[in-house]
Amino acid sequence: MSDEVFKQFKEHSVAEFFKKNRQMLGFSGKVRSLTMIVHELVTNSLDACEETGILPEVFVQVEELGTDHYQLTIKDNGPGIPKSHLGKALGQMLAGTKFHRYVQQRGQQGIGAAACTMFSYITTGQSTKAISACSGKKFTANIAIDFVKNKAVVEEIEEVPTDENGLTVISEFKDVKYERSNYGVYEYLRRTALANPNCSITLIEPNKQRVTFPRSVEQNPPRPVEIKPHPLGIGTHDLLEFAKRSKESKKISPFLTETFARMSAGKVEELKNMLPTVDFNKNPSDMSWEDAEAIVKAFGQVKWIAPATDSLVPIGKTQVEASFRNIFNPEVLVITERSPKVYRGGIPFMVEVGIAYGGGVAAAEKRGEVMRFANRVPLLFDSGGCAITETIKTIDWKRYDIKNFDEEPIAVLVNLISVHVPYTSAGKQAISNEEDVMDEIKFAIMEASRSIQKYLSGKRRANEIANKKKVVTRYIQQLSSDLSILSGEKKDDIQKRLTKIIEDKYGGEEELAQGEGKGNEEETVPTEKEEDEENGE
Amino acid sequence: MSDEVFKQFKEHSVAEFFKKNRQMLGFSGKVRSLTMIVHELVTNSLDACEETGILPEVFVQVEELGTDHYQLTIKDNGPGIPKSHLGKALGQMLAGTKFHRYVQQRGQQGIGAAACTMFSYITTGQSTKAISACSGKKFTANIAIDFVKNKAVVEEIEEVPTDENGLTVISEFKDVKYERSNYGVYEYLRRTALANPNCSITLIEPNKQRVTFPRSVEQNPPRPVEIKPHPLGIGTHDLLEFAKRSKESKKISPFLTETFARMSAGKVEELKNMLPTVDFNKNPSDMSWEDAEAIVKAFGQVKWIAPATDSLVPIGKTQVEASFRNIFNPEVLVITERSPKVYRGGIPFMVEVGIAYGGGVAAAEKRGEVMRFANRVPLLFDSGGCAITETIKTIDWKRYDIKNFDEEPIAVLVNLISVHVPYTSAGKQAISNEEDVMDEIKFAIMEASRSIQKYLSGKRRANEIANKKKVVTRYIQQLSSDLSILSGEKKDDIQKRLTKIIEDKYGGEEELAQGEGKGNEEETVPTEKEEDEENGE
Repeated sequence: MSDEVFKQFKEHSVAEFFKKNRQMLGFSGKVRSLTMIVHELVTNSLDACEETGILPEVFVQVEELGTDHYQLTIKDNGPGIPKSHLGKALGQMLAGTKFHRYVQQRGQQGIGAAACTMFSYITTGQSTKAISACSGKKFTANIAIDFVKNKAVVEEIEEVPTDENGLTVISEFKDVKYERSNYGVYEYLRRTALANPNCSITLIEPNKQRVTFPRSVEQNPPRPVEIKPHPLGIGTHDLLEFAKRSKESKKISPFLTETFARMSAGKVEELKNMLPTVDFNKNPSDMSWEDAEAIVKAFGQVKWIAPATDSLVPIGKTQVEASFRNIFNPEVLVITERSPKVYRGGIPFMVEVGIAYGGGVAAAEKRGEVMRFANRVPLLFDSGGCAITETIKTIDWKRYDIKNFDEEPIAVLVNLISVHVPYTSAGKQAISNEEDVMDEIKFAIMEASRSIQKYLSGKRRANEIANKKKVVTRYIQQLSSDLSILSGEKKDDIQKRLTKIIEDKYGGEEELAQGEGKGNEEETVPTEKEEDEENGE
Repeated sequence: MSDEVFKQFKEHSVAEFFKKNRQMLGFSGKVRSLTMIVHELVTNSLDACEETGILPEVFVQVEELGTDHYQLTIKDNGPGIPKSHLGKALGQMLAGTKFHRYVQQRGQQGIGAAACTMFSYITTGQSTKAISACSGKKFTANIAIDFVKNKAVVEEIEEVPTDENGLTVISEFKDVKYERSNYGVYEYLRRTALANPNCSITLIEPNKQRVTFPRSVEQNPPRPVEIKPHPLGIGTHDLLEFAKRSKESKKISPFLTETFARMSAGKVEELKNMLPTVDFNKNPSDMSWEDAEAIVKAFGQVKWIAPATDSLVPIGKTQVEASFRNIFNPEVLVITERSPKVYRGGIPFMVEVGIAYGGGVAAAEKRGEVMRFANRVPLLFDSGGCAITETIKTIDWKRYDIKNFDEEPIAVLVNLISVHVPYTSAGKQAISNEEDVMDEIKFAIMEASRSIQKYLSGKRRANEIANKKKVVTRYIQQLSSDLSILSGEKKDDIQKRLTKIIEDKYGGEEELAQGEGKGNEEETVPTEKEEDEENGE
């Protein structure tokens, strides 16, 4: 009976898995699928440009070939991909330069580009055309995937000399649709431009309309530094894997200082003293599970310097402010940027929050709008299952004079920055409920909300005082003439004196309340981050 | 510059991918992680038992070894796994008997069991002990994973004769926690028992308390039949892959009838007539993309019989009713079971809905409770991003006399049944927003809600009529004696006649309203499903 069942036992490739479960890559629905494709290729372009110090220029063209049938061209001015790697980069899942590195990037899985090649092939039977201009040569090839093996199938077309740089990807897709909705390519690129002011993005829509999101900052953001893992982010198994792979160090002590961030010789001494039973002169490859477990436990008892700040680069206060003023022109705007934290023990991350209230926000289509970003990439989908949305739901908005979040003219931007964003699925549209991350999002929103509350309550108090003053002032005229008759003093003098009394009483309060009501970005507490940034790269 | 970056190019295994992105498998949070492990292993046990016609008996023991450190034992009376496959089944991702088959199963990815072995190893450094009693032999082995290769590492321990059957898996885990909360192992098993009355489940909690969820049905549900794919569920690429793999048929015509469900010789003739340019005598392996595309397009223009009903086995009306009465003892209960539908063109699925209102539901902890299931497996997590939850939000509950879903004593059970459940991630806790699936969930809930509404409005009208009657009856005494004085007739006679008039007027209405107010399961429309089920397998 059992043998019968096991005749059906088979092994599958990751390409077959994602072909069958394309919804896990975000390919569900026609509009969303097209946006996901643009998302995967554009994030790769931006990563490649910024990594090599090039100011990104991305060109996106969507041409309609038939009903639900489009051709997509994405061209960048990045470094291109060497001939030797082009197939793997676009036609093999889980291959690339990103998965294993400890650096803030948009892509982090090595799946996205191959997923687009896959989606093109299974909906149209066409290969994806790639033109890579790199190191003086322009190489053109058609790329497909062998699903059973998860390997690229590359058909070379030509190789010619060039003095350009950059990658162009041209593919056809069916079962997709171009639409200027909140979930479409246009909105995706608009939000990308918002969070990436150093990029110039041109979109040619199917109706041939050319939309340009121009560059507003003539310089790339500081390059996030590739860091070593922080001791607090390490599990026993990770430590053991690092130890097994270590080739340079012959002993555990230098292996530790070479492998981990913030691991000084002094810290190693501290660990040695805590762990008399562990032999730190052992070859790292001989480390036992017990050794590793003891060391990881000791990591948790030592006081460490937090992960390096320059590993995380936020959108930045000035830019979030400029973007928000641009879109919403709000009555009040608060940006909070907090210092880096760690989750799962030691993966560094940082949360950036902007809250806009009133003014243009009231005129916007949506009340209680949430704009989610991760490593500057807009997240348009799966908001229901995202830690950002869920955290916003847990906030007691009434405490901040926001009666009902979903009905007030409020817009909240949250950008999560990390060397490894904990996405809920390979489609990278929602952030998992990591407790440390949710706590930090909450604190950041609360911090910004306090300034909003101060402004709103100040404004309310100023209104109240102005009203009281108006009411009292109404009686001055009558009272002055009555008192003048009774006392014989001049009515004008009495009136002046009464007016002064009222001004003294209410004027100061009014000013104070209005001052509180300013609630602009100066209200927020500066963080270490800003100081570091000023020192600049 | 580019070459520099590409020195870092690497290929990774699916095991490495899920090790780094364990949150995609549902391993985030201590309580959830433990529940996910039990979920993966118990669903495998139930699938194995039912597939081989064994009434499932599952034993789950959770022992606390230290803080956040547990040993888990899961033992079933299933067929066991042959020695040749044990390693792969528990120690290699994307290997198994499930991924490629077109049959309703709990597992469908071939990831779950290996994911548990992975989680045990990376948190404790321990292998997972497996004892498989199968075909007269009891084989014991320790199993680990080589992450770089995604291959099982099997250490054989012993092989002895036995006359038993079954699989026992014993593993240690850290970073997990046992808790009797809504997201814990206990609740997961309770809901599993609710949807699987043919199973006997025993749980030994860390405090040694033994909980038994006894079997309430002495027979497995009808075995879902493994079906051929329906023509409407096929894309061009799928057809081409089937054609390339086809060995038996030398021509396209017999290949089509052999490969697809509902594909009679008559239907093939119909297709031939529609497609004069396609050569149906061609060898299937010579089929071009154009041929395949034309055939798939023609599939969409032919009228097909819906997918076979016996491929989908719901929990069943009687069982959902018994379970709901058990948990909630509600005032009113409606179960809807609709006929199978298809999504993505032709993947068969079916939606089963139960709505309980009032009575015990009012006493339950949570208002507006939603209990989600997929192929009888309880979904405890990620409700925010699930098509079931999102669909419930779109329902205009006021139309059904439910003023505010989240505040009323209402509980909704939704079970999605399919040969391929479109999960949002490998953690299998939320259903993707497939439009056809969401529509059908909505219709099923609306259908059930109409009966609830009928009951509630009937009850309200009956109350109104009873009140009116009470008010009018209050005057009979006085009116009768007044009329008796005026007319000289006997007061008793007048009173009797007046009472009769009132009874005639209100009594009938009252009965009618109360009748409507019954709102029990007879209200729902029988579907083809039920008829089929009566005819048996």
